Amino acid sequence: MYLALVSVKATRMSKELRDNIFQQLDELVLIDPHTHINALDPASHNLADILGYHYYTELSHSAGMPKSRIEQPGLDPKEKVGRLIENFGPIDNTIQYSWFIEMAQRLFGFEGDTVTKDNWEGLYDSASEQMAADDWTDTVFAKSKLESVFLTNDFDDPLEGFDTKKYIPCLRTDDLVFHLCKPEVRERLENATDLEVGSAAQLREAIGKLFAHFKANNVKACAISLPPSFTPTQVSDARADTAVAHLCQDGPEASDSDKAAAANFVFWTLAEFCVEFDLPFDLMIGVNRGVYADGVFQGQDLYDSRVSLIQYQEVLNAFPQVTFPISVLASVTNQELVSYSWIFPNVVANGHWWYSNTPAFIEQDTAARLEAIPRTKQIGYYSDMYKMEFALPKFAMYKRILAKVLSERFVIDRNWSEEKAIELGLQVLRGNVETIFSM
Amino acid sequence: MYLALVSVKATRMSKELRDNIFQQLDELVLIDPHTHINALDPASHNLADILGYHYYTELSHSAGMPKSRIEQPGLDPKEKVGRLIENFGPIDNTIQYSWFIEMAQRLFGFEGDTVTKDNWEGLYDSASEQMAADDWTDTVFAKSKLESVFLTNDFDDPLEGFDTKKYIPCLRTDDLVFHLCKPEVRERLENATDLEVGSAAQLREAIGKLFAHFKANNVKACAISLPPSFTPTQVSDARADTAVAHLCQDGPEASDSDKAAAANFVFWTLAEFCVEFDLPFDLMIGVNRGVYADGVFQGQDLYDSRVSLIQYQEVLNAFPQVTFPISVLASVTNQELVSYSWIFPNVVANGHWWYSNTPAFIEQDTAARLEAIPRTKQIGYYSDMYKMEFALPKFAMYKRILAKVLSERFVIDRNWSEEKAIELGLQVLRGNVETIFSM
Amino acid sequence: MYLALVSVKATRMSKELRDNIFQQLDELVLIDPHTHINALDPASHNLADILGYHYYTELSHSAGMPKSRIEQPGLDPKEKVGRLIENFGPIDNTIQYSWFIEMAQRLFGFEGDTVTKDNWEGLYDSASEQMAADDWTDTVFAKSKLESVFLTNDFDDPLEGFDTKKYIPCLRTDDLVFHLCKPEVRERLENATDLEVGSAAQLREAIGKLFAHFKANNVKACAISLPPSFTPTQVSDARADTAVAHLCQDGPEASDSDKAAAANFVFWTLAEFCVEFDLPFDLMIGVNRGVYADGVFQGQDLYDSRVSLIQYQEVLNAFPQVTFPISVLASVTNQELVSYSWIFPNVVANGHWWYSNTPAFIEQDTAARLEAIPRTKQIGYYSDMYKMEFALPKFAMYKRILAKVLSERFVIDRNWSEEKAIELGLQVLRGNVETIFSM
Repeated sequence: MYLALVSVKATRMSKELRDNIFQQLDELVLIDPHTHINALDPASHNLADILGYHYYTELSHSAGMPKSRIEQPGLDPKEKVGRLIENFGPIDNTIQYSWFIEMAQRLFGFEGDTVTKDNWEGLYDSASEQMAADDWTDTVFAKSKLESVFLTNDFDDPLEGFDTKKYIPCLRTDDLVFHLCKPEVRERLENATDLEVGSAAQLREAIGKLFAHFKANNVKACAISLPPSFTPTQVSDARADTAVAHLCQDGPEASDSDKAAAANFVFWTLAEFCVEFDLPFDLMIGVNRGVYADGVFQGQDLYDSRVSLIQYQEVLNAFPQVTFPISVLASVTNQELVSYSWIFPNVVANGHWWYSNTPAFIEQDTAARLEAIPRTKQIGYYSDMYKMEFALPKFAMYKRILAKVLSERFVIDRNWSEEKAIELGLQVLRGNVETIFSM
Repeated sequence: MYLALVSVKATRMSKELRDNIFQQLDELVLIDPHTHINALDPASHNLADILGYHYYTELSHSAGMPKSRIEQPGLDPKEKVGRLIENFGPIDNTIQYSWFIEMAQRLFGFEGDTVTKDNWEGLYDSASEQMAADDWTDTVFAKSKLESVFLTNDFDDPLEGFDTKKYIPCLRTDDLVFHLCKPEVRERLENATDLEVGSAAQLREAIGKLFAHFKANNVKACAISLPPSFTPTQVSDARADTAVAHLCQDGPEASDSDKAAAANFVFWTLAEFCVEFDLPFDLMIGVNRGVYADGVFQGQDLYDSRVSLIQYQEVLNAFPQVTFPISVLASVTNQELVSYSWIFPNVVANGHWWYSNTPAFIEQDTAARLEAIPRTKQIGYYSDMYKMEFALPKFAMYKRILAKVLSERFVIDRNWSEEKAIELGLQVLRGNVETIFSM
Repeated sequence: MYLALVSVKATRMSKELRDNIFQQLDELVLIDPHTHINALDPASHNLADILGYHYYTELSHSAGMPKSRIEQPGLDPKEKVGRLIENFGPIDNTIQYSWFIEMAQRLFGFEGDTVTKDNWEGLYDSASEQMAADDWTDTVFAKSKLESVFLTNDFDDPLEGFDTKKYIPCLRTDDLVFHLCKPEVRERLENATDLEVGSAAQLREAIGKLFAHFKANNVKACAISLPPSFTPTQVSDARADTAVAHLCQDGPEASDSDKAAAANFVFWTLAEFCVEFDLPFDLMIGVNRGVYADGVFQGQDLYDSRVSLIQYQEVLNAFPQVTFPISVLASVTNQELVSYSWIFPNVVANGHWWYSNTPAFIEQDTAARLEAIPRTKQIGYYSDMYKMEFALPKFAMYKRILAKVLSERFVIDRNWSEEKAIELGLQVLRGNVETIFSM
């Protein structure tokens, strides 16, 4: 009996312990610090909204489904769902598939383990019915234990018609930095600000006006995604003037040098306004757009993992007053993120982005962060979702891995108490979101 | 008692579960999708054939054995084996040493755990006797549960004298792409095809003839290993013509630019014929040849891990009809392989190559693949062996790791049933080899 | 009952097994093959000496403590300790914090788990009292089970006043290779050697004299830390002459080309003297100095993980007689280190350096090394410490991880006996230090 007890104790130190920590973490009500939710239409209306998420369309396409079957113009939502589900066999191993199942079970009351050609219609209809309820969005918030979500707003978003305490604006700036050569972008900027933008000074003024508008509407972060080649540097106003003038004149035909100078100028200007408006600047580093040109919608981007945070040395030194929550696309950059967060007061490690948002990478990356970055300087997770229903399974995945890492690497390896481990988990899940984004 | 049962259950969820999954996977008869087997002499004749494998000679040399002791001209096989084994102490920790022991135990009935100066002769003699049996090769196939193996054939291999259903041809093309400047390579090509190769058009015709010859002999793949610097791109016929002419004229003294243009032209042409002949094109990416110039035979190659699949963007987009099973040399490229396989329909993750073929890397890489690449698009393992005896211990190593990953990350972490996990294992072990190579 | 026994057995195969292996490893008396100990003042005098270690100041600064509060001129040691400890909340998750607690518990008899504003003064005073004992350094050596430590000596260190058998000299050469343009460096060299250094030949002679001086004082290694951009190559004496002349003439204003030529010449010359004086040459690869310009003392360096050992191909081939114990700064380079150690007889994997000296990276990197590098060619760990008190907790951390890897990956995964696993552990902990550095 003694032996059995020893054994039970040791065993409890693994799976049971992990489950218990998960339960504690799972009690917490969360703020999701990065999503692509449309505040005017946050939740799904049918399963096509859910399975239209690029993870399902791109994996299905990768596994052999022609793009034309997925993106056929005028395709009926139910027909689309049927087509996708009937071809889910080849992707039923993926973690993304498991998100769908967990969501179906916990949000729609689905009772199976797999959705197949034999049972999907029932699920579709039942889900549609539930989503038709007036309070569906509230239900999802409640079931997901979510309090509020950060948005990803176009710079010219009017930010009207929604509660900015629940749907928190975040100023997304990719277009301004990388697409200013496009006439339509400059036009949107001029329309949004009632200002002309033909010079560096005018551009700065217009950007300042955007910040003021966002600030008046509870913005909590400025954000941008960046290609692996980008190395921000300060350019002089004179150089910026020339570059902006050439972009206005030549549009997309402007030289690479002018485009780069303009990008650097706008990026730097954004950081300056982050100082002025006291906003963190989320950097999402590493994506190459349109690598697979014939991919499905949002399923064309990949990356070159040969990127380094040393590229951000100048900007991190220049803006000590700005907090930079940094996300990296590839796990091979995670150690740099750990080290830079450990050294630079203004660098914070932020979530597990996109291609690194799968369990094997999250586990490694989380373990490395929790043991070497100050506990106040890491944001555990964000969902990156387009529709509200995804918060539940994505956060659940993360919390299970967080519980695994806390139990194995803190309680077992380092002899921490369970309580202390849970506290650390709660801080990276929620506490830091509040302090870092001044909620 | 209740506690003990709980504990037993939890424990079973780890090591016992893993062993059980392994047993199930180990029942399967396999096809080995990449080897260097000589179909006319597939198995070993003595232990010198086995310990001549570069892993043993290079590790022994690295641990201090002079190259001259290993590669002494005219060295008697038994003497060579004695020299190597008596110096195995410093490498008995390596996974490669464990392959040798497992092979000795399971193929030759060796009963110890270590081979030393005191017991190697008995093993040598007993092994020689067993290998002398007429049906030794069949015995190895049977004990290894192998049905057939892919070869690595020189482009001018006559493919005669063996059963191409059991020894499946694979057209290896490194020489054509990277060594066309050498007169002997062009001569071999002319001899193999009865064609002159002085222009791009002639070269294309000759390559087409090679494909036709291989296709007539059950070829199932075209293959190549590639240095980290290679970034395939399409060149015009005119540029290719100039390049080929210069290579014919100047040989190895031709300019780097001409060599690169010719390499690109040949590579592109191979891909075109893969379309025409409906063949997958195995890309083995990342090796630098001859880095350690004084190394033993086949023990001189290393790599620069700074390579990216973005270098293959153009070719992957240009040939959607060709399946590219991709192997990467360094584990730091594995996440890119996962992501590219998840996005590109024509990319397949293929095995664990060379310096990544050790347990710590296999485990990480396998975990990342199984959870994010469609299950139909990953080939679990190939042996890369030169002699048939290595399939057994190498596949056994892989299957143990696969069982570990399936039990820990699918059954325990994701609550999969054992049966479902085993099914996934069987598919990546064999099913996908059949579908991907149209067996 | 049978089930319970099975379970106990399986359980013992994990945590108990690991603990038992740790106990065995922990018995061993060690030699620390790389530290920054000052032989004339090896141990601390108060907790400010300990918490002045850059890990604590840089993490505290990163977590929000102003540099001016940490590095205030004339700050009283006790006041400094109070300031740091009272701000330790945000870093109490880090492994570095755990070093401090373990040291306090095991060296100073501290009985808590956390040091807070309420208990730090007692600890401070008690520690000061203990450190004031005449035999404190001996006590630390004894409690840490350390026999001797390698130093990091400036090239002009007189090496006088200490026992070079206990404090083993190591010739550190960063200044000579990378800072020869500075007049003060050349002056120190001239003073140390009584030689002028205006030409390549003179420089070589001076360096030879340094080696002779160090050799006469029991030096056991030459060492250097290297930026990621460095790619050593041999330059001609003529080129070196020009470069040295320009450096002497222009100082820090000399051209980058001349600085690089001089660096290459000195580096190559060091390797030549390592042959002559039969010394290993420790290469610590990958650090960028001063990345965070406003960081605290020693808390400004970071890295670009895009570095490859292929950059060392030429030197590794040119000096087969020199053993190069190599440390890499980022774990993404660890696989290259494994592969290069497995192929090159003169490459040895050395410890877990700086930003890779945290459990998650040590565990991965150790696992990969133990299974693929000859067991004679890996040095498990060095402390890198500045004050003697750190050996105990740092080596303890490493030994726990080593025990974990040995139990999980050798005893459990590969069915090794516990004894055999422990032997491997002991060899990488101590045996190899003796053989590699010819102790």
